[in-house]
Amino acid sequence: MDIATVIGLILCVVLICGSIVIGGGSFGSFIDIPSVLVVLGGSVAAVLIAFPLKTALGAFKITLKCFLNKTEDVKTIIQQLVALAETARRDGLLALESKMEEVEHPFVRLGVQLAIDGSPPEVIEDLLRTEVDSIATRHAEGKHLMDQLGRFAPAYGMIGTLLGLVMMLSNMSDPSSIGAGMAVALLTTLYGAIASNCVFIPFAEKLAYYNKKELLAREIIIRGILAIQSGENPRVIQQKLSAFIPPKQRSQEAA
Amino acid sequence: MDIATVIGLILCVVLICGSIVIGGGSFGSFIDIPSVLVVLGGSVAAVLIAFPLKTALGAFKITLKCFLNKTEDVKTIIQQLVALAETARRDGLLALESKMEEVEHPFVRLGVQLAIDGSPPEVIEDLLRTEVDSIATRHAEGKHLMDQLGRFAPAYGMIGTLLGLVMMLSNMSDPSSIGAGMAVALLTTLYGAIASNCVFIPFAEKLAYYNKKELLAREIIIRGILAIQSGENPRVIQQKLSAFIPPKQRSQEAA
Amino acid sequence: MDIATVIGLILCVVLICGSIVIGGGSFGSFIDIPSVLVVLGGSVAAVLIAFPLKTALGAFKITLKCFLNKTEDVKTIIQQLVALAETARRDGLLALESKMEEVEHPFVRLGVQLAIDGSPPEVIEDLLRTEVDSIATRHAEGKHLMDQLGRFAPAYGMIGTLLGLVMMLSNMSDPSSIGAGMAVALLTTLYGAIASNCVFIPFAEKLAYYNKKELLAREIIIRGILAIQSGENPRVIQQKLSAFIPPKQRSQEAA
Amino acid sequence: MDIATVIGLILCVVLICGSIVIGGGSFGSFIDIPSVLVVLGGSVAAVLIAFPLKTALGAFKITLKCFLNKTEDVKTIIQQLVALAETARRDGLLALESKMEEVEHPFVRLGVQLAIDGSPPEVIEDLLRTEVDSIATRHAEGKHLMDQLGRFAPAYGMIGTLLGLVMMLSNMSDPSSIGAGMAVALLTTLYGAIASNCVFIPFAEKLAYYNKKELLAREIIIRGILAIQSGENPRVIQQKLSAFIPPKQRSQEAA
Amino acid sequence: MDIATVIGLILCVVLICGSIVIGGGSFGSFIDIPSVLVVLGGSVAAVLIAFPLKTALGAFKITLKCFLNKTEDVKTIIQQLVALAETARRDGLLALESKMEEVEHPFVRLGVQLAIDGSPPEVIEDLLRTEVDSIATRHAEGKHLMDQLGRFAPAYGMIGTLLGLVMMLSNMSDPSSIGAGMAVALLTTLYGAIASNCVFIPFAEKLAYYNKKELLAREIIIRGILAIQSGENPRVIQQKLSAFIPPKQRSQEAA
Repeated sequence: MDIATVIGLILCVVLICGSIVIGGGSFGSFIDIPSVLVVLGGSVAAVLIAFPLKTALGAFKITLKCFLNKTEDVKTIIQQLVALAETARRDGLLALESKMEEVEHPFVRLGVQLAIDGSPPEVIEDLLRTEVDSIATRHAEGKHLMDQLGRFAPAYGMIGTLLGLVMMLSNMSDPSSIGAGMAVALLTTLYGAIASNCVFIPFAEKLAYYNKKELLAREIIIRGILAIQSGENPRVIQQKLSAFIPPKQRSQEAA
Repeated sequence: MDIATVIGLILCVVLICGSIVIGGGSFGSFIDIPSVLVVLGGSVAAVLIAFPLKTALGAFKITLKCFLNKTEDVKTIIQQLVALAETARRDGLLALESKMEEVEHPFVRLGVQLAIDGSPPEVIEDLLRTEVDSIATRHAEGKHLMDQLGRFAPAYGMIGTLLGLVMMLSNMSDPSSIGAGMAVALLTTLYGAIASNCVFIPFAEKLAYYNKKELLAREIIIRGILAIQSGENPRVIQQKLSAFIPPKQRSQEAA
Repeated sequence: MDIATVIGLILCVVLICGSIVIGGGSFGSFIDIPSVLVVLGGSVAAVLIAFPLKTALGAFKITLKCFLNKTEDVKTIIQQLVALAETARRDGLLALESKMEEVEHPFVRLGVQLAIDGSPPEVIEDLLRTEVDSIATRHAEGKHLMDQLGRFAPAYGMIGTLLGLVMMLSNMSDPSSIGAGMAVALLTTLYGAIASNCVFIPFAEKLAYYNKKELLAREIIIRGILAIQSGENPRVIQQKLSAFIPPKQRSQEAA
Repeated sequence: MDIATVIGLILCVVLICGSIVIGGGSFGSFIDIPSVLVVLGGSVAAVLIAFPLKTALGAFKITLKCFLNKTEDVKTIIQQLVALAETARRDGLLALESKMEEVEHPFVRLGVQLAIDGSPPEVIEDLLRTEVDSIATRHAEGKHLMDQLGRFAPAYGMIGTLLGLVMMLSNMSDPSSIGAGMAVALLTTLYGAIASNCVFIPFAEKLAYYNKKELLAREIIIRGILAIQSGENPRVIQQKLSAFIPPKQRSQEAA
Repeated sequence: MDIATVIGLILCVVLICGSIVIGGGSFGSFIDIPSVLVVLGGSVAAVLIAFPLKTALGAFKITLKCFLNKTEDVKTIIQQLVALAETARRDGLLALESKMEEVEHPFVRLGVQLAIDGSPPEVIEDLLRTEVDSIATRHAEGKHLMDQLGRFAPAYGMIGTLLGLVMMLSNMSDPSSIGAGMAVALLTTLYGAIASNCVFIPFAEKLAYYNKKELLAREIIIRGILAIQSGENPRVIQQKLSAFIPPKQRSQEAA
């Protein structure tokens, strides 16, 4: 579970509610269902037009990812690859077959299987890189969807405020209601700003971060598989792959 | 038909009308023909200046595409390519001639024809890639036109509002008409925001999505044709091409 | 002549004037010479600082291009190149000398001359590409100038409005003049928005479009010249070069 | 210590406080704890959601770097590399072992060690470049975090102002309090603008500058190590590496 | 001297002062020393934090460059290179030694010296390109500094206006002073807009232009030196290098 996402969201809610309480406002004046509908409904509608149905419906699943995603432990992956390299060097590539059960990461499995099958290195690299590219493309689409929600939410907030202002201005017979009318009109802008800056934009950033981490892990795996296949020295492989991670984590690993 | 576009547009209309009804506004105060003319007419005029006549007139056709476009089914294309590969491997490249009738996709036909004609692989790849590049360029132009509409609509909305404000401010003899004047002035900004965020920007995004899908399909076809020509094993071809699509779709295909 | 530019500009003027007439405003309240000077003069001044004198003075000529430019007909160029290829294949490269008079396009002439002179293909390609790069650079500068005008016009519009507001606010003895003061102050913002969105930004886009078309034509010519020199089959050359243009235009050409 | 950062921050504080004093305002009217909480707390919350916990907590350490960072002296590094090159040329690569103690820069040590170990040049370059890439990635993340803070601070400033405006507008029974309400509402926007423009954005720029300098130093080291290994003339190495630094610094170095 | 910069700046001042005079404003109401301090001082402070002290202090020198810079005459450089090529072809590379005194451009001197020293072409190209890259990096930094000033000036203008508004709003006992308070508050926004759009942004653009011209000249020199070293025909060298400059200038040169 991604604890930072949870803490951040709770902090957002506490700060906004707290500032209303301290400011002496009533929560009632901050709740307006039609405004919520315009901002969230409008953003969803825009995303439905902008994306194919399947991707748009996948937005909910993508959101969950920001809470539940478990980044792969790059250090463990490197250790596994080095262990595989040792086996391959000692007992030949075919000996990896017996080790396949211990390998959990599907991408490592795919690579090792290709190596055992005796595909030439160019074919293996081509296949694995195509796979990585198509993963990157799918992830980029998820991030892009969040980015678009973060862009449409304030836009529909502004549309809602303009709707409210026009209604208020075309009916100014009762001057005492002007303040309340303005307050309601501003609520959609507020909703749009909160939805965008507390949820959509930060979520898009976190998805981008996950994607980067995952692509790094896969890059390490591709390099590792190719090194294993070419029968490189496991110690050299470890040195090569460790260069991808910060020195601090590296030294722990050596220990 | 692209059902998401239709749902999204209907949702937009329902939300905006609903919020007017709930807010107690009259639809009459939201309709102002000159404002519509300034925003839509202005955007069209700007696009006419910015693009050649042919491209600008094509905007209507491009808009239709967001409703009617049928994305190519990548899985089917891969199956066809694998079937062609099997024929070519069993009976030689020339045997593909008899299969040409079954091939519907014009780009596959072009590639297979080139392979049958015995053009060298570099020539085939060069020709097909040039073709793909020029398709991508034309599609990018369509998306760019929508982007520009999405950028000009709010700008002309602001121009309309400024026109309205100047008229209102230079004639303030009747204070009671100020509210109504402001309301009308704001309408163009509202129209610009709605046109941009409900139609132009989401449409531009969807066109970009279609383009990406289509380019992916063509990339798969180019790789497939080249693999067929070089007489690769159909099973390897299938594995290579399947790497371009998500694993879920892949496993269904294998079934 | 670029008819779309003319139609677009006329439409802009008609819409803006029309909306003033329908709104019941007087044209007099929309004309303020000092405001025009601040917006246009300021944009010109900023462009003078931002660009060398020669480029800045060239802005007028660039503007004319948006009205008068005649895009090169790519189909005709391809036909000419194929005709040259046929001559070269039948009678040798030197036979092109006699055909030089029929060739109008200076870039085709340059390429053919280089081929006749017997320069090696790398030298020809290098020379032609350097030429194309330096054309692209000069065109990009023209577009960039228009972009900057489109960016400075609203900025100086805002500067003018601030000047007007400060004058109005420091002299509020006569409340009845506040409306008129505000109206005049807003005029510069209006002028900046119109100058930018009716002229500068669309013109920059059209210049970019011309540039793209011209570079495409030159790319086709370079490919054609190199193919002619290497003695390729004219039919293959036609197929290769046609891949650069949309299929529709291609089929007409074949007819 | 980075004296410019300190001077800049002090100047910011002096200017803002000075302008309050000269303007005759009281500092009390500029302090509002809930507003501080919304802006800073909100930015922190958004960053927590957008980044993994570890990176977000590292923000404080990154901030310190803007005060304490000591850029590496590129001239000294070049002199060291040239000295190493002289030793290697005179006494062979293995003689560098005895010089290792004098080398402080960990990246130079790593490179020299690899050269002594007799790794082939491609392996050394690959390892060192992977190392540099992963440093660049980590630094880019730090800068990106600052960029996000600089983007969220004004956004939460606006959210705070909207909260304040809605509270003020829904409770306008006492007209005399409107001014004070507006003042408090504007404070969050002010805080957001100051936090962003005095701290976050300039800090992000300085981190980017440090990163660039460090990458330049490492590029020089990689080139130097490879040149040492290939036994190039130390004078040529000096000339090559000096080309990376401005001529002025270079001439001093020669002296 | 760059006459366009001077004309542009004078035009800016004349237009702004003129519009104040015509608008009937007094210059006194446009001068507020604390506002100047907040905008300019704040921008300088932000730049001090964002850049190292040396670069920030260099801003004044960079500014001078926009007035005094003399762009190199590319035609003359080409003529010199062709003359050197003729000497080298007739009398050998070493004969260039005697011509060195006539060569003024330090970069041409460096290249010729390397050629005389008999360095292999790859080494010469590598050294010259590294030199060009490091010049480009230093220039980009100067432009970046101006860009940042152009971005911070309006930001500090807004900060100043918010400071003024808060002071005005928290002290509204005297309604007649509201207008004047607002006017003063708006002055910082005005100053920021003028500083950014009359000075910083156009200066950044001009620095970018100088940089591009200088890099083009150096590209031509590198190509020329390499061609001289490889003993190419001076006429071909002239043709090659002339392709970098517009045809118009070229034909004059041939005359």
